[in-house]
Amino acid sequence: MKFAICCNDDIKQAAKVKETLARLLPDARMLSIDALETGADFTFVIGGDGTILKAARFFAAHNVPIFGINLGRLGFLSQAGVNEIESAVQKIKNGEYKVQDRIMLKSGASVALNDFVVKGCAAGRTSRFSLKINGELLCDYLADGVIIATPTGSTAYGLSAGGPVLEPSLNAFVIVPIAAHTLSARPLVVPDSEKITVCTQKFVVSADGQEVYEGTDEIIIQKSKYCAKLALLDDTEFYPLLRDKLHWGISPLKC
Amino acid sequence: MKFAICCNDDIKQAAKVKETLARLLPDARMLSIDALETGADFTFVIGGDGTILKAARFFAAHNVPIFGINLGRLGFLSQAGVNEIESAVQKIKNGEYKVQDRIMLKSGASVALNDFVVKGCAAGRTSRFSLKINGELLCDYLADGVIIATPTGSTAYGLSAGGPVLEPSLNAFVIVPIAAHTLSARPLVVPDSEKITVCTQKFVVSADGQEVYEGTDEIIIQKSKYCAKLALLDDTEFYPLLRDKLHWGISPLKC
Amino acid sequence: MKFAICCNDDIKQAAKVKETLARLLPDARMLSIDALETGADFTFVIGGDGTILKAARFFAAHNVPIFGINLGRLGFLSQAGVNEIESAVQKIKNGEYKVQDRIMLKSGASVALNDFVVKGCAAGRTSRFSLKINGELLCDYLADGVIIATPTGSTAYGLSAGGPVLEPSLNAFVIVPIAAHTLSARPLVVPDSEKITVCTQKFVVSADGQEVYEGTDEIIIQKSKYCAKLALLDDTEFYPLLRDKLHWGISPLKC
Amino acid sequence: MKFAICCNDDIKQAAKVKETLARLLPDARMLSIDALETGADFTFVIGGDGTILKAARFFAAHNVPIFGINLGRLGFLSQAGVNEIESAVQKIKNGEYKVQDRIMLKSGASVALNDFVVKGCAAGRTSRFSLKINGELLCDYLADGVIIATPTGSTAYGLSAGGPVLEPSLNAFVIVPIAAHTLSARPLVVPDSEKITVCTQKFVVSADGQEVYEGTDEIIIQKSKYCAKLALLDDTEFYPLLRDKLHWGISPLKC
Repeated sequence: MKFAICCNDDIKQAAKVKETLARLLPDARMLSIDALETGADFTFVIGGDGTILKAARFFAAHNVPIFGINLGRLGFLSQAGVNEIESAVQKIKNGEYKVQDRIMLKSGASVALNDFVVKGCAAGRTSRFSLKINGELLCDYLADGVIIATPTGSTAYGLSAGGPVLEPSLNAFVIVPIAAHTLSARPLVVPDSEKITVCTQKFVVSADGQEVYEGTDEIIIQKSKYCAKLALLDDTEFYPLLRDKLHWGISPLKC
Repeated sequence: MKFAICCNDDIKQAAKVKETLARLLPDARMLSIDALETGADFTFVIGGDGTILKAARFFAAHNVPIFGINLGRLGFLSQAGVNEIESAVQKIKNGEYKVQDRIMLKSGASVALNDFVVKGCAAGRTSRFSLKINGELLCDYLADGVIIATPTGSTAYGLSAGGPVLEPSLNAFVIVPIAAHTLSARPLVVPDSEKITVCTQKFVVSADGQEVYEGTDEIIIQKSKYCAKLALLDDTEFYPLLRDKLHWGISPLKC
Repeated sequence: MKFAICCNDDIKQAAKVKETLARLLPDARMLSIDALETGADFTFVIGGDGTILKAARFFAAHNVPIFGINLGRLGFLSQAGVNEIESAVQKIKNGEYKVQDRIMLKSGASVALNDFVVKGCAAGRTSRFSLKINGELLCDYLADGVIIATPTGSTAYGLSAGGPVLEPSLNAFVIVPIAAHTLSARPLVVPDSEKITVCTQKFVVSADGQEVYEGTDEIIIQKSKYCAKLALLDDTEFYPLLRDKLHWGISPLKC
Repeated sequence: MKFAICCNDDIKQAAKVKETLARLLPDARMLSIDALETGADFTFVIGGDGTILKAARFFAAHNVPIFGINLGRLGFLSQAGVNEIESAVQKIKNGEYKVQDRIMLKSGASVALNDFVVKGCAAGRTSRFSLKINGELLCDYLADGVIIATPTGSTAYGLSAGGPVLEPSLNAFVIVPIAAHTLSARPLVVPDSEKITVCTQKFVVSADGQEVYEGTDEIIIQKSKYCAKLALLDDTEFYPLLRDKLHWGISPLKC
């Protein structure tokens, strides 16, 4: 198996982790997150959330599993912290992992693992949005914007805007309005076969909060033909992770 | 095709609708919602939401499609109002309909098309709940209760408690806490293959808000092997219905 | 009593209403919303929400009551629709009205009757915000922005972002985060004597969604020494208006 | 100054704290939470939230300040934990404290410092509620119930049901529907001079989650003429407490 190590060298703690990984995988190809290349069968990614998202999108198109090592707090996409590298590498070398496919979204040439966020550019503060599903009108509202998120992205910006959490294997997207100027707007979970059109006069759209561009009139968002491939060690499960990240233990408020 | 007409005779407007239907379908078997029987290939159901839910659960086990005629406002489960009966019957006789399968939940011998709602019985007002998915702990919280809803039920009580709307064909359930005494509780959408266990000392559970019974310690909720079968006329679609029911047209608040 | 009639001439339906008013109040001074002047004891304002907000802010500083005639749908600030003008003018001439003081916010030289909205300008989508009350840290969060609203503004943008409704006579403001990237952020209602500081690196702030300007580091928001003065006819009450605007009649969802 | 020490002897950790307090205040009168008596000028209360709420209601009517020592986690009503007793007693003996008045609610002979919670008893799960303010209809909805909370109670059950936090000195109540079966129901903050009537056929009402009784048709809730009197050490402030209790530091979600 040909390994690659993809690193965000802008983060200062990355150097030490890269060194450790390079020692454990002497034949691995070293890549920078800013100059991604194909050629490996498996890629370790060192960085924060943004680094892992970017690498996940790139390697998805080449069918290469990634394993994220998060330099900050452990996140939903990072399978190991800096202290667990040795044992993780050993397990992966031994083939003791499974690959989980994560559906992605696309819009034109853009791809997102978490979400597309469409925000209005009206001089004031709300814009008029129309949403269509498979070309048929779903709703109109005045809002700051709208989020189309994958299950993977449901724990990110969608959650901030009041959306539900979706278990990652679901073949579904969630549509979450941002500060809609109506009391009846609610998050809507739809099959991932639906083609979603967001219509608004002038907008800014971001893919995974990273690639930002402007547009007018409408944007069409649908399932990408590629899936991100996350390598999971045998003991990594979504629900315990969720309990941990969202602090879902008992924490009663006190009066 | 053998038709049955199932009516809730407690509702006074039902008699007239039943008369109309009986005239249009002279060979149909007349059933009361309080004494359901099998034997037909297709059943018309006259009543309110509760009547349709009850009939849907019963006929699901016998693989019989139902067509709901709502005496009050049109709902998500009623495919026609009282003014559209003639044309609806004609279409159904001509086979101009499709049958949509709706997943259901079961718990022991109980079945629910909308939801199971588990509420605590503590003397005070909140109870301690633990949720398990496939036997593994998901979370603990103090709350009034918890809702496990199908996509069909997502527009009912789940929505009241802050849950998202799920498109009806999704193979997923949504778990919605009711007034959880923690700021981090959020609705969670899970695959319909998951076995959900709600643990709390003493509880009251209701299936579709109708069958109510008490229990202790834990209750296990999972997918029923039966699906409710809703006959839809060609022009009935979920998204326009949703827009209509939830008033998702433009209705900006005014300052 | 010296009357003025202040009109937004950009709205085409305004001309007819202005004509009617001018006939009923032949001595009234005619003003444009774009060139406001003092000198009257009482001002009629013809326009949409934005027009009334702008006039309310201006005349507050001159202690002049305003009476809003909304050309679109009746709003929380418009005391009459186009069909009620004659009877309204008669009542006002007879002194059959009361003046309700509405607290306002100020920040530097800017004044807001509804709200100040502070949004981040980070390239990505969330910015780090710190809020201080009377100079002491209240909280830190990643968010799209934060709304500081008066009771009058609580039914506008604050409501869209999940805030509560505040009865207009309350001496309180409400602080509402917009899409905060934490599950524990909640709207906070504080006495109107509090000085609120919003700290974030680079921001855009809008007063009543109209005056928009940029800033850095921090912005201080507190009670204005002026109150907007709304003339209310005897039969105008907040709670019935609220019930009407927010559709708080019975409208049960159907299953 | 005559001190009393009021203890909930059902909690096993209470004995040790009571002993410490008795040593520091040898002349204090010992009271049980189950047999409260007047006669002191200042009362220390040892117990959990429920104990402190009960004592606060009782001593409010006698104009006696209380100082809560919480045996569990520090709460919004407990001014010291078990490790801070000595220094707290010293400060109080020296008069180094201020007394904060907290408004309370009453309904008939019942008093609540946190809230009255009115829940329906319908066989199914939602009941029809009408709310009136000062005798005039505010709204109708189907719901599980409704909470009328003081600012003190706004951080308790009201928060669980989606209500805002109210700074404790505000002269306001917040009305929060529980799982209302309409998308337009929202928390409403009203002046504490308002008389609130909750109408529903058959209900259970609880005061501070403790005194529970049944009723029919309607219940009237308004401001009590008594205020709970909380003794605060000089360094106790609401906003830092709020930040601490609600975890309002930065805690970004990770993707």
